[in-house]
Parts: sequence; structure tokens; C-alpha cells
Amino acid sequence: MNKEAPIGIFDSGIGGLTVVKEVRRALPNENIIYFGDTARVPYGIKSEKVVRNYALQITNFLMQRNVKMILIACNTVSASARDEIQEAAGDIPVLDVISAGTKAAMAWPEHDHIGVIGTLATIGSEAYNRAIREYNGGVKITSKACPMLVPLAEEGWTDNDIARQIVHRYLASFEDQNIDSLILGCTHYPLFKETIQQELYRRKIRIVDSGESIAKMAREELARRQLLNPSGGTFECYVSDRPQRFQELAERFLGTEIPNVQIIQL
Amino acid sequence: MNKEAPIGIFDSGIGGLTVVKEVRRALPNENIIYFGDTARVPYGIKSEKVVRNYALQITNFLMQRNVKMILIACNTVSASARDEIQEAAGDIPVLDVISAGTKAAMAWPEHDHIGVIGTLATIGSEAYNRAIREYNGGVKITSKACPMLVPLAEEGWTDNDIARQIVHRYLASFEDQNIDSLILGCTHYPLFKETIQQELYRRKIRIVDSGESIAKMAREELARRQLLNPSGGTFECYVSDRPQRFQELAERFLGTEIPNVQIIQL
Repeated sequence: MNKEAPIGIFDSGIGGLTVVKEVRRALPNENIIYFGDTARVPYGIKSEKVVRNYALQITNFLMQRNVKMILIACNTVSASARDEIQEAAGDIPVLDVISAGTKAAMAWPEHDHIGVIGTLATIGSEAYNRAIREYNGGVKITSKACPMLVPLAEEGWTDNDIARQIVHRYLASFEDQNIDSLILGCTHYPLFKETIQQELYRRKIRIVDSGESIAKMAREELARRQLLNPSGGTFECYVSDRPQRFQELAERFLGTEIPNVQIIQL
Repeated sequence: MNKEAPIGIFDSGIGGLTVVKEVRRALPNENIIYFGDTARVPYGIKSEKVVRNYALQITNFLMQRNVKMILIACNTVSASARDEIQEAAGDIPVLDVISAGTKAAMAWPEHDHIGVIGTLATIGSEAYNRAIREYNGGVKITSKACPMLVPLAEEGWTDNDIARQIVHRYLASFEDQNIDSLILGCTHYPLFKETIQQELYRRKIRIVDSGESIAKMAREELARRQLLNPSGGTFECYVSDRPQRFQELAERFLGTEIPNVQIIQL
């Protein structure tokens, strides 16, 4: 495999850009191809079969672009299609946000009790519970769906009074719970990291950003395979619909502008 | 046509139940069949061609159930597939929320300036602007997308502090505008009617609930055609996915429980 080859990152929509942000920070020399399936978002309300089918179409697209690694930046796909994508990708390593977030949370020396927040679909699927139990069958897990946070992030209200009240209301579920860490189980949620930190500042709770975690895992895996790129850093961005809306929102998620979002039908 | 035949009402999801509520209030003797396309919601981000195709599938389903009238309780379908549905429905009258809301707003004696709120998709489509201009080319229109209101309604936060602050923030756009009426251009928004009224109470602004308007139009049209049902009142409810979630939310939208939501693939 080629060191200069890009890393493929995909999500059902825009949220995965928070993963791109962390990967660019951890691996500034890597070339990145992002695909956001904006025509078919949200995946969370679709059947597993449909989600697998979409995820494999995207995997094909990325493999045609000769990626050296695939990062699944979508919790729904991580929960329902991870194995199928790895099978389709053959030798190409596939990392996903659920495994990455879980691994990072479990690496914390104390983990008697883990909190998880995510969309209704992610929390309802119990995918984090299953992933955490694979590491440790005895750990206590408290999870809470926070359906308002995705639309809040897309409206750009991440640190105003309304955002603080909504975060406060959701995190009230954890007030009487002695959680050691809180997994942000949705790629939109890192936009609320400061607001969540302010809400939890009195307590020693580690906030696990699965974007940071998957970026760290990607760096370790590329190093292990001697596939780190010595001199790249390009970023190509594809969506399946409404590139302009994506471009408008992108700066908020990525922390920088995207000059040229291309539309592609799979 | 048969007086006992049901009225068919459909939406991309659950919002259309606010229309059902008004139709049941205005026409308690009518039998109603509702279809919510919960597998494919939201329609607003899909292309017009796809929305038309879905809408015609639903029209077919309703016609197989021998409906005597079709009410389009979805702003996206009203904007992009009204004529196609009327063509497919032949002699069966088809009413839609955009025409109904616009007609009701224009019936107000003073209408120099109309406000419209709706989803990003509805406001972006300018469908209300076109419908209003057909009545009156000179009227001023101020519109505002309120993307947080749909998730707020589905979370059940329609009259708490958070809802009041969000409504206040959105309606601030109309503060310096002398609007005579405000069209609630999304079937979720009637759930915020009281909150919106409180926000606007100092000003003589008529709030136009397109659910009320379409129910009134339906009653007039059935009376004109001598098709009013003397003795019905049944309600059948179909969705394309997740009937349980629909059932949970339904009470909030309809004001009463739905005993038996059936799932159907079109």
C-alpha cells in the first residue's frame, strides 16, 4: 500500500467533519477524502439492511479512490455495518467511532460507571453498551438520548443560553450517577464539549470525544503499518446532495472553510 | 361518490396529525385514514422528483382505500407535487396545507404584510411566497426558517422555558416588521401556538394555523359536493416504519391516544 494514499472518512451527513478536524490535527500530513451522504441523512431511522447497503456503496467509492484506511465517522454505521465494511475493504484497515470511543473510555484507570449520550437511534440500538461489555462485563452504563443537540449544532447554537439550558437538562440524568467518563456518542456533540465541560466542571468526569479517539487510533495503526504520509495534507470533500448547505455548516464543524465541496451520486 | 367513504390525510411523518386533530374537530362524523411516511421522513431534503414519486405512491394507497377526498398535510408535498396528485386523483378533491393557509391569511381584511415561518426546506422553496403572490402581487412577505421547532415538538418541549426562549429568538425577526398575520407553515408548529401567541400578544397579529384552515376548507368542499358523512367517525392510522415511536408521539400531536398504528410498505 502507498503512504501517499488518502484516508477515507465518511458519515451520513456533516457530523463526521468533527472527526476530520481531529484527524487533521493528529495527522496533518495525511491526505483525506470525506464523503457525507447528505441526500440520505439521517441513517438512524433506517433499517440495518438499508444502512449496510448505503455503507457498502460508500466503501466502494472510497476504495475506488485507493484509500489506505477507512474511518467510519457515523455511529449508526459503526453499530450496524462495521464487519461488512471490513470484509469489503479486505486488507485496508477500518476503524469506527464506537470502538474508538469505547476503547478510550476503558483506558481510563477507573471505569466502574460509564455515561453515554447520543441520538435516539444510537442510544436505542444499545451499540455502546455492547461494545463496552466486550471490554468489561461488569461496568455500569447509564445512557441518555439527547435528540435536541444535533439540530442545535446545525443551527449554530452551541454556546448560547439556550444550548446551556438544553445541555443542563440532558445532563441532569447523570447528576446522581457517579459516572467516571462520559462518551460523546454522536459526531455532532464535540461542538458542545466546552458547554458540557462547564456543566460537569465540579466533578472528575472524563469527557470522551470519539473523534479524538479515532484520530489517535488511526495514527497508531498507520505508524504500526509504516503507512504514515511524510508530506501530504490535502482534503477532498464529497456529498450526495446540497453541497452549498454543507459548505455553510462546514466551518462550524471543521473549524475552517471548505473551498470546494463536490456532489456525487453513488 | 360515497358519503361514508373516508377522507385520506397524509404527511411525511407525524406532523400531519395536527391536521387530523383539526379535521376531527371540524368534521367529527368523518372517517379518516392517515398515512405517515416515517420510513422516508424528512421529505424536505429530497429532490422534487423523489418527493413526487413518494407522494404518488401514497395517493395510490389512499385511492385503493376509496377515499372521497385527499388532504396533503405536508408542506413539502404541497409545494412540489400538488398538481400531480390532483391529476392522479381524478374527480376526488385534493386540498393542501399551503393553499389552505394562504387562503386563510388572505381572507383577513388587512393583509399588507404577511409573516411565514416553516422548516428550512419550506422557507427555502419560497412556496408560500408563490402562493401568496397568486392572490396578491403587492403584499409584503417576511419569512423565517425555524429549524429547532420540529425537534423541540418531538422532544415534547412545547411550553417550557427552553421552548419560550427559542420561539422568542425566532420571532425576534418580526419585531420591527408590521406583519398582519403569521402563517404557521409547518404542521408541527400548531403545538407552539400558545407559546407563539404569548410572544405576540401585544400586537394584533393573526396566527394562521393551516390545519384549522384546511379542515374548514374540507368541510366547505364536502358540503358543496353533498358528501358530508352523517354518521362515521373512525380513524385508521398507517405508517411506513417505527409504529411504536409514532404511537408514543401521537398523543402530543393529536391530543388523544391512537390505539392501533399499522405498518405498511408502499
